[in-house]
Amino acid sequence: MNFPNRKKPQQKIINKANLGMVLEDMINQSNEYYLNAHLAVIHKKPTPVQIVKVDYPMRSKAVITEAYYKTPSTTDYNGIYKGKYIDFEAKENHNKTSFPLHNIHPHQIDHLRAIIKHGGIGFLIVSWNVYNELYIVPMSVVLKYWDNKEVGRKSIPYQEFTNNCYKIKEGFAPRLDYLKTVDIAFKDLLEK
Amino acid sequence: MNFPNRKKPQQKIINKANLGMVLEDMINQSNEYYLNAHLAVIHKKPTPVQIVKVDYPMRSKAVITEAYYKTPSTTDYNGIYKGKYIDFEAKENHNKTSFPLHNIHPHQIDHLRAIIKHGGIGFLIVSWNVYNELYIVPMSVVLKYWDNKEVGRKSIPYQEFTNNCYKIKEGFAPRLDYLKTVDIAFKDLLEK
Repeated sequence: MNFPNRKKPQQKIINKANLGMVLEDMINQSNEYYLNAHLAVIHKKPTPVQIVKVDYPMRSKAVITEAYYKTPSTTDYNGIYKGKYIDFEAKENHNKTSFPLHNIHPHQIDHLRAIIKHGGIGFLIVSWNVYNELYIVPMSVVLKYWDNKEVGRKSIPYQEFTNNCYKIKEGFAPRLDYLKTVDIAFKDLLEK
Repeated sequence: MNFPNRKKPQQKIINKANLGMVLEDMINQSNEYYLNAHLAVIHKKPTPVQIVKVDYPMRSKAVITEAYYKTPSTTDYNGIYKGKYIDFEAKENHNKTSFPLHNIHPHQIDHLRAIIKHGGIGFLIVSWNVYNELYIVPMSVVLKYWDNKEVGRKSIPYQEFTNNCYKIKEGFAPRLDYLKTVDIAFKDLLEK
């Protein structure tokens, strides 16, 4: 390993590791930790694929030889936490000033809207890669911008994140302990 | 349409339709109905696929040209109903006397076991195709047979279904109104 700045080696390791590890991997790692620690059961859903052609070569397993990616109708992650249904979508943002909402499919917004209507916990996890910051964005904040017909440009400014969203603190095990932030963001719902 | 027995035309239609419509289609149809009626948000998870090779032909969308089916680590269906997390696996049974448990992957049993431990609603829907009967099988019944080390043959006898499981009545809209049966089978949990 190589530390360009010997003064803060630990900080550097974390930053370097994060650059190489995509958000999805971090969340999957956290979910595995939560599952083994009996804290929650949260899984990533498989990527939706339209299978067109399958070959069955003799004495070997089926091979899908033609398939296409489908637009997801729900979010990537769901499960159960403290007896509550939990559901979220995770997105990386490479911008500096705002998070463009065209990153989210309308179906996913409809889905999360239905989830909170049914008493579930629904949110986005947005990673600001430029700042190395991650936030939990409650649906109330998302919908404030999504449903705003007057605004032409649909994006959530960075200031909204720092003011009204919940920053996920980096940890050790799991590195992305997002449920600790869920505890704060959805305190009322979790105590019901 | 063709009615070999004119005496019970309606009964015949239902049976005929069921034969042509697989269990998965029926459940998907019910879930769509529940979603539109704002009764529940339950979706089938996509089939897990290991994508090996993707081609990007010019000016057209990505084509997956090599992929393989993966063993599912969770169940097919989950969602939220009356504010509760709900999770189940659906299986068709072609036998006459028992339902063999090798139809269910050990991972799926572990998953459902964790779900009920966390306060969620977990069960199987088993279709007895020979009798044209469908049952909700609570995990307590499944685990009684799954965890029984003394029994060599792991299967649930038909009698266990008629005695200790919950028969799903056929309806009109949706045809498979399984949540009505969930209301009965998980009354205590739903009222909490």
